[in-house]
Amino acid sequence: MAPVAPRSGDAIFANIERVNAELFTLTYGAIVRQLLTDLEEVEEVNKQLEQMGYNIGIRLIDEFLAKSNVSRCVDFRETADVIAKVGFKMFLGVTASVGNWDAEGTCCSIILEDNPLVDFVELPDTCQGLYYCNMLSGVIRGALEMVSMKTEVTWIRDVLRGDDVFELQVKLLKQVPEEYPYKDDE
Amino acid sequence: MAPVAPRSGDAIFANIERVNAELFTLTYGAIVRQLLTDLEEVEEVNKQLEQMGYNIGIRLIDEFLAKSNVSRCVDFRETADVIAKVGFKMFLGVTASVGNWDAEGTCCSIILEDNPLVDFVELPDTCQGLYYCNMLSGVIRGALEMVSMKTEVTWIRDVLRGDDVFELQVKLLKQVPEEYPYKDDE
Repeated sequence: MAPVAPRSGDAIFANIERVNAELFTLTYGAIVRQLLTDLEEVEEVNKQLEQMGYNIGIRLIDEFLAKSNVSRCVDFRETADVIAKVGFKMFLGVTASVGNWDAEGTCCSIILEDNPLVDFVELPDTCQGLYYCNMLSGVIRGALEMVSMKTEVTWIRDVLRGDDVFELQVKLLKQVPEEYPYKDDE
Repeated sequence: MAPVAPRSGDAIFANIERVNAELFTLTYGAIVRQLLTDLEEVEEVNKQLEQMGYNIGIRLIDEFLAKSNVSRCVDFRETADVIAKVGFKMFLGVTASVGNWDAEGTCCSIILEDNPLVDFVELPDTCQGLYYCNMLSGVIRGALEMVSMKTEVTWIRDVLRGDDVFELQVKLLKQVPEEYPYKDDE
């Protein structure tokens, strides 16, 4: 049987269940506002958003693998490409690009010009340390961990902080031996 | 100029920006989990989810009016129909039905068979008092308040509590004189 070709992000996005982007944007905004009220420290909010994203990422990877026909990537370079071109399209409906590779091919940036999470968002002065979209970095870290890649994901540029694009640096810390996410008896 | 006909929920849903439903479902689940951790009391979580929904509803109504071509509804009966058939389709991609009207035409139920918020959700025994989807009732209350209708929205049936469908009772408390949502100097 011929191998099944990975599907493009556009093709997948056209055929999956979706909800209104503004509802998602406002719901995400409600989370951030809630955390700011409950936790008070902006740094704690950043951590919590990342952790929530991580918990989402370790589950979302299943949907990604099931719907995208993407199988094992040969290396981290290919993985980053798939996240940017298939993953972002499939989940948020936007395309990202990859750049700023280091010489070893273990660190790169994912660059987003359009980001539905921040529609209508302006940060007040009291929230200047906030990484508003930090859930996204957690999603990437969580999803990659489920395919055996320990990474560190950090914001380099952020439109809400006055930059022209969003830039997420993804650094591969180590590749761990593949393990099944579930035990047989679960 | 001929009046513009209201658009069907399907037509609108096909043409708006959307995000992956599973990402939305998991993000919503992350909010609920966060609130359960922070607030401890299930009753407080219900309240908070409703309040978050209210804050979303008072903004989402603008998108709804802008995209749906729905103008003023003649009465509460028509309003309920529009929520069920256009609103739910436009935002969640599902259709709801309306029933159980009282004699005065001021109280009815919106019935949902399919609800993307609860995919993969099972309530543990410790959360039996939780109205998991309570954000939805807040969204309806908030949106209706912006078009001059004070309502009370309560869950009558809930699939997560063992019922066969979701049933939201919407009771019109009073119709207030229309006011602009924003002051001129804001």
